[in-house]
Amino acid sequence: MSSEVEKNEQRKIKVTDTTLRDAHQSLWATRMRTEDMLPIIGKMDEVGYHSLEVWGGATFDVCMRYLDEDPWERLRLLDSYTNNTNLQMLLRAQNVVGYKHYPDDVVREFVYKAAENGIDIFRIFDALNDVRNMQTAIEAVQETGKHVQATVVYTVSPVHTIEHYIETAMELQEMGVDSLCIKDMAGLLKPYRAEKLISALDEKLDMPIELHSHYIGGMAMTTYLKGIESGVDIIDTATASLAFGSSQPPIETMTAIFEDTKYDTELDLDLLFEIDSYFERVRRKRGFSRGVTKITDMQTFSHQVPGGMISNLVSQLEDQDAGDRIHDVLEEIPKVREDLGYPPLVTPTSQIVGTQAVFNVLLGERYKVIPDEVKSYIRGYYGQPPAEIDPEVQKKAIGDEEPITCRPADLLDPTLDDIKDEIERYAEKEEDYLSYALFPQVALKFLKERKKEKDIFGEDNKEEGHTKEANEEMELTD
Amino acid sequence: MSSEVEKNEQRKIKVTDTTLRDAHQSLWATRMRTEDMLPIIGKMDEVGYHSLEVWGGATFDVCMRYLDEDPWERLRLLDSYTNNTNLQMLLRAQNVVGYKHYPDDVVREFVYKAAENGIDIFRIFDALNDVRNMQTAIEAVQETGKHVQATVVYTVSPVHTIEHYIETAMELQEMGVDSLCIKDMAGLLKPYRAEKLISALDEKLDMPIELHSHYIGGMAMTTYLKGIESGVDIIDTATASLAFGSSQPPIETMTAIFEDTKYDTELDLDLLFEIDSYFERVRRKRGFSRGVTKITDMQTFSHQVPGGMISNLVSQLEDQDAGDRIHDVLEEIPKVREDLGYPPLVTPTSQIVGTQAVFNVLLGERYKVIPDEVKSYIRGYYGQPPAEIDPEVQKKAIGDEEPITCRPADLLDPTLDDIKDEIERYAEKEEDYLSYALFPQVALKFLKERKKEKDIFGEDNKEEGHTKEANEEMELTD
Ligand SMILES: [Co+2]
Ligand SMILES: [Co+2]
Repeated sequence: MSSEVEKNEQRKIKVTDTTLRDAHQSLWATRMRTEDMLPIIGKMDEVGYHSLEVWGGATFDVCMRYLDEDPWERLRLLDSYTNNTNLQMLLRAQNVVGYKHYPDDVVREFVYKAAENGIDIFRIFDALNDVRNMQTAIEAVQETGKHVQATVVYTVSPVHTIEHYIETAMELQEMGVDSLCIKDMAGLLKPYRAEKLISALDEKLDMPIELHSHYIGGMAMTTYLKGIESGVDIIDTATASLAFGSSQPPIETMTAIFEDTKYDTELDLDLLFEIDSYFERVRRKRGFSRGVTKITDMQTFSHQVPGGMISNLVSQLEDQDAGDRIHDVLEEIPKVREDLGYPPLVTPTSQIVGTQAVFNVLLGERYKVIPDEVKSYIRGYYGQPPAEIDPEVQKKAIGDEEPITCRPADLLDPTLDDIKDEIERYAEKEEDYLSYALFPQVALKFLKERKKEKDIFGEDNKEEGHTKEANEEMELTD
Repeated sequence: MSSEVEKNEQRKIKVTDTTLRDAHQSLWATRMRTEDMLPIIGKMDEVGYHSLEVWGGATFDVCMRYLDEDPWERLRLLDSYTNNTNLQMLLRAQNVVGYKHYPDDVVREFVYKAAENGIDIFRIFDALNDVRNMQTAIEAVQETGKHVQATVVYTVSPVHTIEHYIETAMELQEMGVDSLCIKDMAGLLKPYRAEKLISALDEKLDMPIELHSHYIGGMAMTTYLKGIESGVDIIDTATASLAFGSSQPPIETMTAIFEDTKYDTELDLDLLFEIDSYFERVRRKRGFSRGVTKITDMQTFSHQVPGGMISNLVSQLEDQDAGDRIHDVLEEIPKVREDLGYPPLVTPTSQIVGTQAVFNVLLGERYKVIPDEVKSYIRGYYGQPPAEIDPEVQKKAIGDEEPITCRPADLLDPTLDDIKDEIERYAEKEEDYLSYALFPQVALKFLKERKKEKDIFGEDNKEEGHTKEANEEMELTD
């Protein structure tokens, strides 16, 4: 076959494989086990990926909470079987791998230990694109000498203009980050919008641009195509059996699309199929479904509410015998979002906006009840909202109280020193203190169990398969 | 949201919906019933589609063979509930809606009756892009005053160059056809290849270009995007719950992609969601799966063998306890295809090439056995092969016999007059003779049953639900 685009301006596209983090977080409720990863990690290391996203996001919490696995141990194992490929993690900035802001000492120490155990690239994002929330994490990674990938969260609103993204990206560039990720977790970035956004960023920035989209409504591959034509250097994909649906686009298709063009990924399709066959067998064994695009995923196109959030709202409403109010809630959400200064609808802000919208609809009066997390958001504890909060809503929520204007974590005291005593008898390594600092209850239970087993069975006879029952399913969109 | 592409060069994209023909032929083994279509056809007629593909391809045969439905009756009903939208059919040129060449009198009469019963646009294709095989059908449609859409089948081979497609399209244009369809039934058309192909065609042709791709490996939406940028006027899509996998791309996503650009389809997303919700309910009721992309679908990228053909070969080999030879067969197929002059791998040529490749591998000697249909192909009875047939293979197959060089149907005598007597007592309308001319056994059984029921129950008491058992599943890729 002939080369479709002139080879002389060759611009090879790099690829991040998300199979071991985002893909199974999106499709398998983050339930892939380390034992599922080890037989194939060597082959994945041979592909020639720019990086493997294998850690962070929800995987840390889920390892301990549901899989009875030590996330640090997983990282060490993966690192020990990869020689050619960067290992990458998703770091929720000041939220680390949790759901609230942690003190700076926890953020710093976590980054040091992650780097020590094998992470080469740290992708750092904040739900509100508030760079102050990313500062400590960025500086800590810079101290380790590892790669800082700063992130801007993509959303649609009157204040999320191309100029907003350029300003934020320029700020991040001035902080000395190594690359920029555009994070389209809801699959909202349309191809011709991507063309404008990426062209503008590419012109201003002196660093590589990575595009992270979720397939969801099905636009992501067209968005990657126009994004790449406009200057994207790296794309995020997953192996076919863990691609599509709420996950990333499939690497096999992207490879075929750009083969023999100037954007050729130069990956070996047959090796990719071999890897995919392995994961397809794991998928069947574990009983998970393939990713498909549901109508609710597509309804995102008409009101910008992410599909995962819609499913959550529907079941929330059905619990109240009010399933028929979903359309009212979907109409209320953009209004609440406007009142609150257009936060991107991503964890945790999607819950904040969604819960308020449900109250507004079910109680028949807007802001009659305002949940604590909404008040907390209005007080500034999540960071700077993208636009001004409606003064009347603010008054109803917090009266005459002044929202904070500082970086939220400035108000948090260091905690690592204080917790040493609390779990000293269960900890085996420095990293265990971090696990506890992030998820005290979950980590304590995990560490206690581990000690008990070792007391009974000895070091090498860990009992198999006593997975804890899941008490709650979390909506995880990152 | 702002307009991403300047509105001043507005070029609205038209859409053909394939839900009622190709989509369920691809995903539901063509088993959608007329009763599933009637409750929603009125809403589909309101959307503003350029056309609804509702008839032809495999639907005609399957109606009688498996659904105990009269295909003519379906067409009349659909026509009676549509006022705004063109009804479209897929006509297999001299094969009409069957799997072999029929005499000219059958082709002509079929076209007249299809037009009379409601077809506005006839999409006509030949598996070998032999325009002689399309000639009678084209002329017959022209006599009715309806729209002739001529088709070129897309495939990958050294002789299927851009120039080949331009030449074929120019020949068709000279025959006075109204529009051109590029038919990518195996999802092989890559976006940057489409860009070159469509740009070249758009420059030469004075008629609208329609692009028909199957999603299969997942490239189709990127192909539509580059195709549209390069001059495509009309795209083929299906409603989301019957899209993806081996079917067409979803209309909802395509609408979202082009919204507020110069290519805006101007379709109403909420109406599209309403229609999709209906079909999603039908899908669940009927127990069909959603379309997903399998690894075999993607392996198409490395050896150009259509996914549907691979599944068929695998089960053919497993019947012979030779499932492990699939890789050998996949390597043999391109060689056989080359020997036979690079026919596109589409029904019926996919079977011809596939069967020969299986024989060559299993018998351990190439062309030791040559099936009748391969001989028939080599004799020229399917039309002119795209390139020369290997002389040694030809010799082995038909010795010194000269292949025919005329249009295959020139050798077929008219049949319609002769069959009148055979089924006169079962026929109720002129169309019944056509059904019988095309599928004698199936039609006779169908017509007899109908008569028996009417004799017993009277006109209005047709017994429900005594669907005949399917004896065979056919591979249908058009
Ligand atoms: Co993600
Ligand atoms: Co088709």
